[in-house]
Amino acid sequence: MSNVKLAVVFYSMGGTNYEMAKWAAEGAKESGADVKVLKVEELAPQSVIDENEAWKATVEATKDVPVATSDDIEWADAIIFSVPTRFGNLPAQVKQFLDTQGGLWASGKTVNKVVSGMSSAQNPHGGQEATLLSLYTSMMHWGAIIAAPGYSDPVIFGSGGNPYGTSVTVGQDGQMVEDVEGAVKHQAKRTVNIAESVKNGNQ
Amino acid sequence: MSNVKLAVVFYSMGGTNYEMAKWAAEGAKESGADVKVLKVEELAPQSVIDENEAWKATVEATKDVPVATSDDIEWADAIIFSVPTRFGNLPAQVKQFLDTQGGLWASGKTVNKVVSGMSSAQNPHGGQEATLLSLYTSMMHWGAIIAAPGYSDPVIFGSGGNPYGTSVTVGQDGQMVEDVEGAVKHQAKRTVNIAESVKNGNQ
Amino acid sequence: MSNVKLAVVFYSMGGTNYEMAKWAAEGAKESGADVKVLKVEELAPQSVIDENEAWKATVEATKDVPVATSDDIEWADAIIFSVPTRFGNLPAQVKQFLDTQGGLWASGKTVNKVVSGMSSAQNPHGGQEATLLSLYTSMMHWGAIIAAPGYSDPVIFGSGGNPYGTSVTVGQDGQMVEDVEGAVKHQAKRTVNIAESVKNGNQ
Amino acid sequence: MSNVKLAVVFYSMGGTNYEMAKWAAEGAKESGADVKVLKVEELAPQSVIDENEAWKATVEATKDVPVATSDDIEWADAIIFSVPTRFGNLPAQVKQFLDTQGGLWASGKTVNKVVSGMSSAQNPHGGQEATLLSLYTSMMHWGAIIAAPGYSDPVIFGSGGNPYGTSVTVGQDGQMVEDVEGAVKHQAKRTVNIAESVKNGNQ
Repeated sequence: MSNVKLAVVFYSMGGTNYEMAKWAAEGAKESGADVKVLKVEELAPQSVIDENEAWKATVEATKDVPVATSDDIEWADAIIFSVPTRFGNLPAQVKQFLDTQGGLWASGKTVNKVVSGMSSAQNPHGGQEATLLSLYTSMMHWGAIIAAPGYSDPVIFGSGGNPYGTSVTVGQDGQMVEDVEGAVKHQAKRTVNIAESVKNGNQ
Repeated sequence: MSNVKLAVVFYSMGGTNYEMAKWAAEGAKESGADVKVLKVEELAPQSVIDENEAWKATVEATKDVPVATSDDIEWADAIIFSVPTRFGNLPAQVKQFLDTQGGLWASGKTVNKVVSGMSSAQNPHGGQEATLLSLYTSMMHWGAIIAAPGYSDPVIFGSGGNPYGTSVTVGQDGQMVEDVEGAVKHQAKRTVNIAESVKNGNQ
Repeated sequence: MSNVKLAVVFYSMGGTNYEMAKWAAEGAKESGADVKVLKVEELAPQSVIDENEAWKATVEATKDVPVATSDDIEWADAIIFSVPTRFGNLPAQVKQFLDTQGGLWASGKTVNKVVSGMSSAQNPHGGQEATLLSLYTSMMHWGAIIAAPGYSDPVIFGSGGNPYGTSVTVGQDGQMVEDVEGAVKHQAKRTVNIAESVKNGNQ
Repeated sequence: MSNVKLAVVFYSMGGTNYEMAKWAAEGAKESGADVKVLKVEELAPQSVIDENEAWKATVEATKDVPVATSDDIEWADAIIFSVPTRFGNLPAQVKQFLDTQGGLWASGKTVNKVVSGMSSAQNPHGGQEATLLSLYTSMMHWGAIIAAPGYSDPVIFGSGGNPYGTSVTVGQDGQMVEDVEGAVKHQAKRTVNIAESVKNGNQ
């Protein structure tokens, strides 16, 4: 039985990364982790959201999901981020969440968090790799331990083979092109397992 | 005489990147460019800014600087970004500015802009390189032409030797550690010159 | 009629990047460029190559292709690299070629080359993005001008949508999964056109 | 008492990265690790080496250091790489070493190695960050766990503050500009400690 506390932090406009976050939570719970699924705060005004049916629906679907805070990051032993790509990098909403953890960072409380990330894009090579690598660069500033999946399980080869983290392409219809549920759950379990080792080792 | 329109877009909390933006503008004007110096919109509430004397002073000092818009990006043949590093990546404020150019991007109007970047950090290796590389990744999504300075002039070796763009370390006292004025002006002229060639070639 | 000299430099074990290099050459010639297709020198011993049928066949098929030299890089106004990914980065053979251009670099002769890259991998997200970004990092050290395709033409959306450069996934059977010929030719023409502008501007 | 096996793998032309490798070994041994210091195989011909006094001297000074092999990587629980930058990326010699571990990778034996890196360059911002980030990209393909130092100890702020790994600038005289011995030893201990946790957790 794991004693790991996992925060799954996502940003989602069309629902994809919310779905991936929920799969990650399921996988992590199967490993015995204590899991919080959290959304980052939105920067867009409601009037802009209202013009986009899919976005509006996702905001509605996630309205009861708590907004991630510094307390959540301090609480967590491990963090899984699920984020869409915006021009090959994190969405501003996600970056704003990271940037506003400066106080936590300055107090040394971001060190040794075990982190992995997941991503999505509309083009098959629309930044899925670059976005995750950008996330990890910031996580190194935090002193986090990066637990990207690599090719640690055969399920990865069947779901796009992204070694930096599970990623998915979203079609014009808003549906995921690849079946990544298994890869997401594997990644979540691996992240939890490594976090458990690190946590026990530090006790 | 150059016919190049240059937007120098900066984000500055402590004044460093505003100063670098002004130097870039000077260098570009010496090359005959038509230059706009523009700040990106702030995401932090005024109450947070007011708690930090240096930040408050910079906001005051830049209060008459126009906020960058999509129209400015459409207008520009060339763009120089001057940005501090936040955890080895663009500040959320800058990313938000980029992300909100999605409409311009979708209409193809970001293609062939000639771009270079400048950065600053509080540690000598605090993300000066990584932040610029992140910027360029996004610029490739825009179809921009990247004109990083490389080692195209001896002045670069004397100012930190950052081939991705002029960068500076900011000491505890808020002052720049290296003298980068010459390197900034060289970078600005090079960016303008390449933009001029590209613009003339497209006519 | 272009006056651009283009070097298409590739490394190929299974034939994919040689094929892409030839398509790039075709596209560039249609734009009037003077084109050389060049392979980088092999580091593997013949005995290792002989154990792999596909590799052996590619070495045989490319035996009359000249090996790229410093003189070729000095000659070129533009360079297109076509390289497979090796653990999300350039193959050692390609890096060795770049590293041995130190003399050319020190004499300033790598500055202002117009560069773009293409890549391949066996997994859909096996480093196609990361490898191209690594290439461009080195090219910035050279003072090159990066002309990644972005989304500068609709053909890109139909061939994987990799804004950093055309990329392809190679199946278990050694065949390309996506049809990227059009995207390669577009990228080659764009690289030549930008190089032509830069060259004319410098005259 | 640690039960961790650590391979410190370096490439050195001028002696800097050999010195850093030895410091890392000292730090790791103080944490009780079983340490091997290993050089990667040279690609340059002896005739080229002989033309450069510093290089020749380093080759002579390291002639009894064993060349790193796949067996060493399989043996190791943790790996620290110490590498100079070549155009913002790994030297070809180091990349060749990584590329030739394909057999180990295919058999799953690179998974869960705990890795960190160190770098050097001749310019203050000559690729120290970019080279380490490139290393980590490849390590993610290996399924390694990345234990970059971040700002996990005050000693890091006094030695350049590179969160991706200890780095040093080498002056024209071949001497290190910053005093990084303490930061190297901290990084080595941190890498060993995390590897110990991961190893114990997997038993």
